[in-house]
Amino acid sequence: MNYINQTFTIKTPKRECFVDITQNLKTHVEASNLTTGQVLIYIPHTTAAVTINENADPDVQEDLNFGLNKFFPNIKDYRHLEGNSDAHLKSSLIGNTQNCIIKDGKLLLGTWQGVYLCEFDGPRNRQIHIQLFGVTK
Amino acid sequence: MNYINQTFTIKTPKRECFVDITQNLKTHVEASNLTTGQVLIYIPHTTAAVTINENADPDVQEDLNFGLNKFFPNIKDYRHLEGNSDAHLKSSLIGNTQNCIIKDGKLLLGTWQGVYLCEFDGPRNRQIHIQLFGVTK
Amino acid sequence: MNYINQTFTIKTPKRECFVDITQNLKTHVEASNLTTGQVLIYIPHTTAAVTINENADPDVQEDLNFGLNKFFPNIKDYRHLEGNSDAHLKSSLIGNTQNCIIKDGKLLLGTWQGVYLCEFDGPRNRQIHIQLFGVTK
Repeated sequence: MNYINQTFTIKTPKRECFVDITQNLKTHVEASNLTTGQVLIYIPHTTAAVTINENADPDVQEDLNFGLNKFFPNIKDYRHLEGNSDAHLKSSLIGNTQNCIIKDGKLLLGTWQGVYLCEFDGPRNRQIHIQLFGVTK
Repeated sequence: MNYINQTFTIKTPKRECFVDITQNLKTHVEASNLTTGQVLIYIPHTTAAVTINENADPDVQEDLNFGLNKFFPNIKDYRHLEGNSDAHLKSSLIGNTQNCIIKDGKLLLGTWQGVYLCEFDGPRNRQIHIQLFGVTK
Repeated sequence: MNYINQTFTIKTPKRECFVDITQNLKTHVEASNLTTGQVLIYIPHTTAAVTINENADPDVQEDLNFGLNKFFPNIKDYRHLEGNSDAHLKSSLIGNTQNCIIKDGKLLLGTWQGVYLCEFDGPRNRQIHIQLFGVTK
């Protein structure tokens, strides 16, 4: 049994955007030498999130951001003085953790899936904690 | 320590529906002989999801679908040419992974809980990956 | 390898509220003697959820509740006779499980993060199942 903790940093370019972190995860999975197990992705921030969605047409990521802004606008009725309660709500709705399966030494994703850091209150430097665990050959 | 990877397929009957997969999970948990551990449910699709909700009154599943369609309609402003960006958004909001606890050799669910594959862009054949891990007696 | 199952109960004070369970989790993590691993938080209810969000300004928790009620009102079109379908929908959107990392014997949270039981149909007594797993020194 192996448990490996890693942290990497992503610089997000604007207030709201999706940043593809799939390759970062694949690199860590390969370096771990785990054949079967999981990688837990944990975002230690309260105005960001992590999701798994389409990696083929970048319009999907634009649409996700567009939809989130349309359906969860930054209304004036919020109390929090920082003025970013919309970002906190989106963070809790999308969620700040994801679990992926490691199988045959590789990250097991669907054909059209990528993993995305969701920035809702950038631009910022965002940390991503991961914990890989499982068995080696 | 044991890690068991399994995949099963569900044929969804229409564009939007909830399909109960609780019994499929229970069968895999029993076959695993694990006494304590977890089962990670992973949906490798970008217009489907997995959720845990009420298994008693089927009206709840209808209401969940009804609510999701009411609050996240398929607006024309979306760019993605396939016309299913509403389904991608619902997938990210509900989420495509869930973790359940295995305790005393059984799937630990609340009294009123069942596990549902959420179809948002069917009918289709959907794969469900699961990874069971933990300890045997 | 160690797997530890625990359950604790929280009495929620009103229909909708967020209850901070961070200290409960920290206490269980310390008692487990695990140095590296995870804690899975599992809510066995269908009108409650668990989220990780800001622990500094309590206005954020108020805003999250306010936003959820504004964007997911309890519309009359729902069928479920108990009249709490809004709570079921919020439960599936926020989600009833979370995974946290244990590192160096401690719960690894971001600076501004706390873990909250989300009550959407209280007041009630709510159970929280946790499973801690990982390695000791």
